[in-house]
Amino acid sequence: MLPLVNDTFLRALRRDPTPHTPVWLMRQAGRYLPEYNAIRAKAGSFLALATNPALAAEVTLQPVERFPLDAAIVFSDILTVPDAMGLGLSFAEGEGPRFAMTVRDEEAVDALAVPDMNKLRYVFDTVAQSKRALNGRVPLIGFAGSPFTLACYMIEGSGSAGFESVRRMAFARPDLLARIVKINAIAVAAYLNEQIAAGADAVMLFDTWGGLLTAEAYRIFSLASMRDVIARLRLSDAGDAIPAIVFTKGGGAWLSELADSGAAGVGVDWTVDLAQARRAVGERVALQGNLDPAVLLTDAKTVARESIRMVRAAGPAPGHIFNLGHGILPATLPDHVAALIEAVHRESAALRLESCAPP
Amino acid sequence: MLPLVNDTFLRALRRDPTPHTPVWLMRQAGRYLPEYNAIRAKAGSFLALATNPALAAEVTLQPVERFPLDAAIVFSDILTVPDAMGLGLSFAEGEGPRFAMTVRDEEAVDALAVPDMNKLRYVFDTVAQSKRALNGRVPLIGFAGSPFTLACYMIEGSGSAGFESVRRMAFARPDLLARIVKINAIAVAAYLNEQIAAGADAVMLFDTWGGLLTAEAYRIFSLASMRDVIARLRLSDAGDAIPAIVFTKGGGAWLSELADSGAAGVGVDWTVDLAQARRAVGERVALQGNLDPAVLLTDAKTVARESIRMVRAAGPAPGHIFNLGHGILPATLPDHVAALIEAVHRESAALRLESCAPP
Repeated sequence: MLPLVNDTFLRALRRDPTPHTPVWLMRQAGRYLPEYNAIRAKAGSFLALATNPALAAEVTLQPVERFPLDAAIVFSDILTVPDAMGLGLSFAEGEGPRFAMTVRDEEAVDALAVPDMNKLRYVFDTVAQSKRALNGRVPLIGFAGSPFTLACYMIEGSGSAGFESVRRMAFARPDLLARIVKINAIAVAAYLNEQIAAGADAVMLFDTWGGLLTAEAYRIFSLASMRDVIARLRLSDAGDAIPAIVFTKGGGAWLSELADSGAAGVGVDWTVDLAQARRAVGERVALQGNLDPAVLLTDAKTVARESIRMVRAAGPAPGHIFNLGHGILPATLPDHVAALIEAVHRESAALRLESCAPP
Repeated sequence: MLPLVNDTFLRALRRDPTPHTPVWLMRQAGRYLPEYNAIRAKAGSFLALATNPALAAEVTLQPVERFPLDAAIVFSDILTVPDAMGLGLSFAEGEGPRFAMTVRDEEAVDALAVPDMNKLRYVFDTVAQSKRALNGRVPLIGFAGSPFTLACYMIEGSGSAGFESVRRMAFARPDLLARIVKINAIAVAAYLNEQIAAGADAVMLFDTWGGLLTAEAYRIFSLASMRDVIARLRLSDAGDAIPAIVFTKGGGAWLSELADSGAAGVGVDWTVDLAQARRAVGERVALQGNLDPAVLLTDAKTVARESIRMVRAAGPAPGHIFNLGHGILPATLPDHVAALIEAVHRESAALRLESCAPP
């Protein structure tokens, strides 16, 4: 493999100095891009696209071709892992994900096992093809759902506003929930390790629903299992540690504990004040985030202004990766993404010069 | 008016000692009660029920008749205020609320005004009739949506998972959002003052959506306007200050600031650790909450166990009002509510005796 041309993302993740703040955006390959929608239409369905490595790799590259982003993230879905467990994933048009089977009782948990990773070969092939196509331009991020977040969909069988069946299980049958989460942790670690073997330069755990739990249940069922996953991660072929990023949406109260999870970076949603987040985690980790995705629905001037404010809030110290506080919204104009990246790069470079200049 | 037979709720709100921890439950008058569904069917629709003072008062009393609750809350809806502004509220069967008009541009904001309180007379009549029917058994809580939460529905025109149009306005047109929120604050204060005049012993502000905002936007658009409302509250006819409770769902990071809002009590959702919440607010306010409503979906034994754990987490010091961390879920069995109240009363009384006993 060639050395990376632009490794600002990986350096920021190690809290090493960078000439500018690196930027990537959650769901940067997605429905707001006309070129994505064209391939999505060609593939016929979201799942057909996600399971076709050539097309999925093409989609992974699209935002990097269009914008000067500092990282790519493999195009996939967090629910590939429970699908490989045999739960039968489908996406009805215009609706969210749905599983043919749910995991709500002892019998269903007994039947659950870490899936054969060969069933997920299409994801690892997507990683490898994306890596080749990137040709060292920027790092490639692999990802998985957190063990608890996967459990949410497996128990509920679909998306949900409150995942009450999951929260009920946390109180009524904590033993069952712990068993599901444990199997998921082993599966997710194996899954991320295959992504690393295929070329991922960093990995991210999306804990979309950990914020629905009580503080105590969060520690037991989500945080501990993410720590478990990170402890199981393999080294790169060159023998280097692969940095992990953990992101619990709604987890603003638990940032300090997330900073001790073994992750190199902690993602923060838009409700969290970035300076306060830095105080909570100290110098232990890089922070990733956290512009409100709704800012991209305004106008180019507001996008630039808010991006600049966030760069200034993060300050010139290393260890900030600019991102949104949640996935990019489908109604986003691509030009606004360009304005965001331009503002972050320009302002962060200027801020570094300022902070070096004599008073 | 007769003095209250059971004033533990009001005393706990003042952080005065009580023989047990008072309990009431958000949405305690609602669909989990068969007697509620019977009256709801008789009325024909939710709005027909909410706008009929005799029936609404009957529904207000139902949970107090059935359970030894320590407070009643007037049966109504937070959207009565924007409805009185002429926005045309309706509830389609099986769906959430919907307004015929939205408030998204300058013209719509120009047309907005504090409504004539006579349009809300049915609510004040409900308060008065509920108060009479309670006959001093327990205090009666009046309530309103927070100025920001009302703005969410007025701008979006309905419920929404993320209220992106509102978050967009906070960045693109903060001037418009500030004007809407200001009008709402004046309207909500007038509305609560009429409820106080009609006999409400305490009032609560439900800030259901403040937690969707960035920390800075929360302070500007939600917290400041709740402070404004509380500052405008009138005294009781006897010249006493009426205690207010503020509750921002997802506001765990801002509890310390909420404690300086002028409210006597601060509500906390179930994701917040109660002991940590107490450290954040110190002795400034009472805390209300925060059992996960999903606990009531388990079994009577688990309900009792989790209720007892929460009472112990709150400790024997005065200033805790037991409640859920969000509204009671419709699938809740009434027997589980009985188990909760019994456990809280028994355990909190025992805890007080323990803490007084010699070692």
